[in-house]
Amino acid sequence: MIRLQKEQNTMAENVIIIGSGPAGHTAAIYAARAELKPLMFEGFMAGGVAAGGQLTTTTEIENFPGFPEPVSGPELMVKMRDQALKYGTRIKTETVTRTDLSGDVKKVWVDSEMYEAKAVIIATGATAKRLGIPGEDRYWQRGISACAVCDGALPIFRNKPLVVIGGGDTACEEAMYLSKFGDTVHMLVRRDELRASKAMQARVFANKKIKVWWNTNAVEAVGEQFLTGVKYKNNKTGDDGLITASGLFFAIGHTPNTGFLEGQLPTDETGYLMTRNNSTATDIPGVFACGDVKDKVFRQAVTAAGSGCMAALEAERWLGEQE
Amino acid sequence: MIRLQKEQNTMAENVIIIGSGPAGHTAAIYAARAELKPLMFEGFMAGGVAAGGQLTTTTEIENFPGFPEPVSGPELMVKMRDQALKYGTRIKTETVTRTDLSGDVKKVWVDSEMYEAKAVIIATGATAKRLGIPGEDRYWQRGISACAVCDGALPIFRNKPLVVIGGGDTACEEAMYLSKFGDTVHMLVRRDELRASKAMQARVFANKKIKVWWNTNAVEAVGEQFLTGVKYKNNKTGDDGLITASGLFFAIGHTPNTGFLEGQLPTDETGYLMTRNNSTATDIPGVFACGDVKDKVFRQAVTAAGSGCMAALEAERWLGEQE
Repeated sequence: MIRLQKEQNTMAENVIIIGSGPAGHTAAIYAARAELKPLMFEGFMAGGVAAGGQLTTTTEIENFPGFPEPVSGPELMVKMRDQALKYGTRIKTETVTRTDLSGDVKKVWVDSEMYEAKAVIIATGATAKRLGIPGEDRYWQRGISACAVCDGALPIFRNKPLVVIGGGDTACEEAMYLSKFGDTVHMLVRRDELRASKAMQARVFANKKIKVWWNTNAVEAVGEQFLTGVKYKNNKTGDDGLITASGLFFAIGHTPNTGFLEGQLPTDETGYLMTRNNSTATDIPGVFACGDVKDKVFRQAVTAAGSGCMAALEAERWLGEQE
Repeated sequence: MIRLQKEQNTMAENVIIIGSGPAGHTAAIYAARAELKPLMFEGFMAGGVAAGGQLTTTTEIENFPGFPEPVSGPELMVKMRDQALKYGTRIKTETVTRTDLSGDVKKVWVDSEMYEAKAVIIATGATAKRLGIPGEDRYWQRGISACAVCDGALPIFRNKPLVVIGGGDTACEEAMYLSKFGDTVHMLVRRDELRASKAMQARVFANKKIKVWWNTNAVEAVGEQFLTGVKYKNNKTGDDGLITASGLFFAIGHTPNTGFLEGQLPTDETGYLMTRNNSTATDIPGVFACGDVKDKVFRQAVTAAGSGCMAALEAERWLGEQE
């Protein structure tokens, strides 16, 4: 028994999957059905979000195909996780802290504990950006949040004026969502137009609870024990002032979660992993990347899932070629 | 009223979606939610399969993420169709027969009836190949089928010896499926190995009802009113003979459904539509291709769905740029 234990410990896994959003779990489902016995590190609040990834911070999902009735993000991720487990994925609720992808056997660490694998699938997603203004750290989670949909329903925000920063689809979506909970939602937009899709713009403009402030930057978060307001400055006119608000929500984009790779894989100028065309293969043989960590264009649950499937099929093929 | 009718007829659609598999319906869901009011031609037995595409010919799907309990192909496609309809897709159960993609306004015909659109999304999928052996036409649908899963349960095949041609995942899947219905399933494999995934190979080899014939070609279908047997020849030894069989199932690959395009879009050497890297954009601005009609590598429901989403988002962006 002891000997068996030892052999198991020293035997490299076929494939380690890092990340547990739609890309990671779809890769796991496919790898497990291909009898690769994948080992997934789903993360423990990795990148600041729960295992399951960014979808766990969304409420109703209307556009994941196969669900004519909206499904909640957490619910969809539980379904995918159950499916990955059912076909034989082993899941560890730990965050990978470091990797060494240089050898034939790839090494993956969770703190001081090392795991080895022949192939690695990176599906660590991306994390919401912060603004970095004075008061931000002090009022973080005391009125400031990067996820309206996760936090907007909290009592401290109900029937209170709120501020959303950003001009993209996410910002519009978050403003719409927050407008359900009561008072005015102030949307601070750096430019004189929204980057959001027209459909989304139309909805925002039609919502009487949302007030859009054009050419406006948030310059400071103020408060006492909790946030009480946001100082702003108009970047065209120079006008400034204070918006009374109990909540400040950032919706200003994302950073791909690649820190644990310490530059071992090439990225584009914005830090996203690069893969071969129409493929999830990275520059390192046996290492594949899928989902939002390599996609800054589409970023949808179903596109992430599709690329997770590709990663598993490509990893399976690659492993077959190594035998 | 008459005037209104006329105006509607002469106004080009935003986007026409041709095809109704996971790619087409995911494109429709995204395009509809973007308020593009897409018009879909789902086809009427287009490419020989029902609206909904190739998935309508599968039984249980275990690998579409979000469904830990297997879902049937037809059931999944009904869900996607309901979802596309719910958000405003208009669906015509007609097969597009011809297109003219050359102008700013693209033209799409169903026989003599013409429709116009600013953008077109092609999601017509691929169709199972036939073998072209003597007797094939005579016994087509009288014992010969290209879809075990659609036809295998018919009374004429129950408890009868059957033949499957092919060595890939589909062939293995079809052999496994047919083995449920009774007698021996003979699997004729042209080469001395299966192209199928290991998982699938393992299942086939473990199934005592399946007999694999290596290096073996089917050379003729024989019978009376219905098929009674398949003549074979071993391509290594030259041995030949007759396998008594009531069913002959082809599982030898697919042809992309591009005939209606009459060569207006570039294809690769095997006839699949070509798109830009990591994109669904074709060489013609405003024309996008997604799903199996442009993917001969992955061909999965979820990869098709992912590319359908991409096509809709790219079409939406492209339409926005034209205004």
